[in-house]
Amino acid sequence: MEQRLSLVTLGTEDLSRSRAFYEGLGWVTRAGRDDDVVFFQAAGMVVALWSRDELAEDSGVQDSGGWGGITLAHNVRSPGEVDEVIAQARAAGGTIAREGAETFWGGYSGVFIDPDGHPWEVAHNPRWQVADDGSVSLPE
Amino acid sequence: MEQRLSLVTLGTEDLSRSRAFYEGLGWVTRAGRDDDVVFFQAAGMVVALWSRDELAEDSGVQDSGGWGGITLAHNVRSPGEVDEVIAQARAAGGTIAREGAETFWGGYSGVFIDPDGHPWEVAHNPRWQVADDGSVSLPE
Repeated sequence: MEQRLSLVTLGTEDLSRSRAFYEGLGWVTRAGRDDDVVFFQAAGMVVALWSRDELAEDSGVQDSGGWGGITLAHNVRSPGEVDEVIAQARAAGGTIAREGAETFWGGYSGVFIDPDGHPWEVAHNPRWQVADDGSVSLPE
Repeated sequence: MEQRLSLVTLGTEDLSRSRAFYEGLGWVTRAGRDDDVVFFQAAGMVVALWSRDELAEDSGVQDSGGWGGITLAHNVRSPGEVDEVIAQARAAGGTIAREGAETFWGGYSGVFIDPDGHPWEVAHNPRWQVADDGSVSLPE
């Protein structure tokens, strides 16, 4: 198995609401296979929105109804950019779980939660390189 | 907010067990900040393993204890490669939720579940391009 991730699908209760939230962050959707799924090209991978019930069934899992142990992160190039993205998420209707602040690991981050409860940490890690194309590299 | 995802952190109950599972799939870890976190460079992004309890607290969410509406996917270049990765996951101790088979959307996929209950669809989508570097592109 190659060491990579191709697609993250976020289960939604209301696809239109979720789509509007991500569009409010400036993301641009691509048409889905039959409009019951929304795809965002996210650099070299894809982020999708789909019915949470259908996703649970398709994934062969039971839905416990809340958060399930996965957090997403969006790394940026400066602490100021963390604050900007948190402000954007607030304006788009997200819940701010944690305002931008210095972290125990020596960076700066905040957390917003999307309309379906999926948390995104927005982080500046001074030891991780964010390239012009948005790709992120661990230190050697 | 740029249209990209930098990091997916998977909450674990037993970091050593989870690390061994992903290493069993052939993945190679990078040292964490203080060995309580495991980082995998995954093409232009990062996949991390960390204590689920700490991740919940850090993310500002309540843990409902099961699956929480996010499924990961690993796209490959042929149906045969789906079966190979599912076999690898079984050998590494994963649970197979769905064997490789043709899907309703015109592709071929299977699903394995990691030791912490996180599902991965392994998929061949003939309409999505998987480049040599593993990046995935939606059709125009």
